[in-house]
Amino acid sequence: MSALDSFKEKIDGRSAVIGVLGMGYVGIPLAISMANAGFRVIGFDINKPHIEGLNNNKSSIKHIPDSDIKMMKSAGFYATDDFSKTAECEVLIICVPTPLDKTREPDLSFVTATMDMISPYLRRGQLLSLESTTWPGTTTQILLPYVERAALTVGEDFYLIYSPEREDPANADFSTRTIPKVVGGYTEACLEAGTVLYESFIDTIVPVSSTEASEMVKLLENIYRSVNIGLVNEMKVVADAMGLDIFEIIDAAKTKPFGFTAFYPGPGIGGHCIPIDPFYLTWKAREFGVHTRFIELAGEINAAMPQYVVDKTVRALNQAGKSLKGANVLALGIAYKRDVDDMRESPSAVVMELLQEWGANVAYSDSNVPVFPKMRKHQFDLSSVDLNPENIAGYDAVILLTDHTDFDYEMIRENAAILIDTRGKFRDDTSVVRA
Amino acid sequence: MSALDSFKEKIDGRSAVIGVLGMGYVGIPLAISMANAGFRVIGFDINKPHIEGLNNNKSSIKHIPDSDIKMMKSAGFYATDDFSKTAECEVLIICVPTPLDKTREPDLSFVTATMDMISPYLRRGQLLSLESTTWPGTTTQILLPYVERAALTVGEDFYLIYSPEREDPANADFSTRTIPKVVGGYTEACLEAGTVLYESFIDTIVPVSSTEASEMVKLLENIYRSVNIGLVNEMKVVADAMGLDIFEIIDAAKTKPFGFTAFYPGPGIGGHCIPIDPFYLTWKAREFGVHTRFIELAGEINAAMPQYVVDKTVRALNQAGKSLKGANVLALGIAYKRDVDDMRESPSAVVMELLQEWGANVAYSDSNVPVFPKMRKHQFDLSSVDLNPENIAGYDAVILLTDHTDFDYEMIRENAAILIDTRGKFRDDTSVVRA
Repeated sequence: MSALDSFKEKIDGRSAVIGVLGMGYVGIPLAISMANAGFRVIGFDINKPHIEGLNNNKSSIKHIPDSDIKMMKSAGFYATDDFSKTAECEVLIICVPTPLDKTREPDLSFVTATMDMISPYLRRGQLLSLESTTWPGTTTQILLPYVERAALTVGEDFYLIYSPEREDPANADFSTRTIPKVVGGYTEACLEAGTVLYESFIDTIVPVSSTEASEMVKLLENIYRSVNIGLVNEMKVVADAMGLDIFEIIDAAKTKPFGFTAFYPGPGIGGHCIPIDPFYLTWKAREFGVHTRFIELAGEINAAMPQYVVDKTVRALNQAGKSLKGANVLALGIAYKRDVDDMRESPSAVVMELLQEWGANVAYSDSNVPVFPKMRKHQFDLSSVDLNPENIAGYDAVILLTDHTDFDYEMIRENAAILIDTRGKFRDDTSVVRA
Repeated sequence: MSALDSFKEKIDGRSAVIGVLGMGYVGIPLAISMANAGFRVIGFDINKPHIEGLNNNKSSIKHIPDSDIKMMKSAGFYATDDFSKTAECEVLIICVPTPLDKTREPDLSFVTATMDMISPYLRRGQLLSLESTTWPGTTTQILLPYVERAALTVGEDFYLIYSPEREDPANADFSTRTIPKVVGGYTEACLEAGTVLYESFIDTIVPVSSTEASEMVKLLENIYRSVNIGLVNEMKVVADAMGLDIFEIIDAAKTKPFGFTAFYPGPGIGGHCIPIDPFYLTWKAREFGVHTRFIELAGEINAAMPQYVVDKTVRALNQAGKSLKGANVLALGIAYKRDVDDMRESPSAVVMELLQEWGANVAYSDSNVPVFPKMRKHQFDLSSVDLNPENIAGYDAVILLTDHTDFDYEMIRENAAILIDTRGKFRDDTSVVRA
């Protein structure tokens, strides 16, 4: 039996053990899907409390219930920081973060650290898939040399693929199974092995011609979002200057049944993808002497939004004869998007920081984030305050940053001295400041 | 009976006569829809041969059959350049072009010329609707003064609205009736009259709060398209530099079932809307001290595409040891998009001009455009050449610019010495030059 046939047999028969490297927003739902499909999954991570939590049936993600972790465990799942266990796995899927460093250049240190830890255990018959978003060429330029140093021949006794994650946390319409999966292989055999793997637990596989092509697909998806949010943020500023409400304009425009997709403005962009991924292409494009001007412009405009919100707050307070310095300001909603507990790259943290720089006393309310978490770039020693009429009335200004569904908007409107709305929730009320 | 009730009665009873001002790509389908709904329509235009054609049942637009004009006529339609007949109309709808002048500033001369011609005949009980795309404020700043000078009180004995056209020539999925219509009125009564009018022949009406808001809606729709085409054109250049095929990337990205809409690159942008409309906002925004940087960037990148295509041609010929100077080059498809005969702002004309500037002998083939028409900016004394193996083999280079469905792509591929493809029609053939 050929190596490829043997690999397929292990996938089809579910005897293949799956190692998921990086048990976060991508790794956990992926592991659950594969466990659901009948695979035994091992979750690798370097965070000991997190590993312990998973081994005690604790999900670390709001929209993933503990019962899902329990189900995985009953199917043989366990989490570990012992990377020698990767030797037991036929499949290794890397789902680690790929952030930017301080100068906004790609930081692949989580990927290379993972490769450093697993490379002693790479062996014949394994498939290695990278799912982390990255620049075109990462799989062949960064991962491939590790495999070759292990004296393995990719495409013959080892399979190397790139298959971008498309997780959309808290999207109720789609799950890992129903989101089509793009797969690119280093060789034809790699692509075939990758297809066999992913089609065992995902409905639709989209093969592309190379790992570079699949890397670029994911970037294009997120560049499209970043640019369109940037565009609508710029349009917000223009509409506002003209006395128009951008949310009314967008809602009317989206009645066009073709050729228009609605994006909404906000206080900036957040999450692990949109603010970061596009710059991976910007960085790599420089090597080829080409520029990514839309990405740069979107980055610049989106990054300017927190200050725009603060400027609107300063003006509104000024109208009331107050300065922002010394004012008590309440930030409503600090997770990066509606109804999640995810603070990654949340623009609310930037707004809060700017408010503090201006001398405001900042508080926040967000039932999804009871305590302001430790973040790489931001530090607040704050807990979520309760929302009730007396509390709200006690602030000089209240800024709606993330429009969670559990806010009592009518109560907020009635009691806020100055209400600043970055989400278009109070459109017909001219006393509310659009920002 | 109030003036508004009387207006409504005339619409509901179909006794209202409709004047459509400007019988072109927007006015003709609009007139047909209203005639279909039972109205008597008069078509106003200043082009005598065009009027004569319509009165002889001749449609000037490829995708609108002569039989539609005949139907209108049997319902009482006629075309005229006698603008005094507007006095007979209860409804006046302006559908004239709104181009840019040489310095890319709004040219509203067709609108003001129309208003100059009809203003002596404006009377009580009429509704005036502007459908031409324009900057926010045009209806109140340009049209309203004409009406007020006629001693009419808008909202009481005259109705003024802005309702942007959303025609998509040759879109088989949607017609005037099924495309929701955005309406903004100068007053509440204007909005009500406008709604009554349009809902008499269109399924869904989308009322907005002002004429300025409805003007902005249309601009946002086209700005979205312009920016996304610009983005994908930039991505094409980046992907090409990296050795990747942007069409493969886009097709894989569009399998994402949420958050991505596919746009395709090409040799530039054409048609009356996308290359022009966005700059109406750019111009007006300056008055408010705000900038529209995405619009400018998209304009710049899209405008650079014809030269990109020519550069690719120069390189391909150079590889074959030839210069573009003296080369025989065939442009395939010169209408601005697939399967239309519309040359407005077609980037193919720009490519042809650049080729000529470089010293090439240029020919074209497009069954939709048998003779190169008179254009404001471009002049070619050419007719479409037949496509057959001998003809194609006679050119040093063949450039696919617009991917009409009636091209025999296999025959073209087999016979072209050098084939340059701006539309991704020959994706698996590495001998074809991507441009």
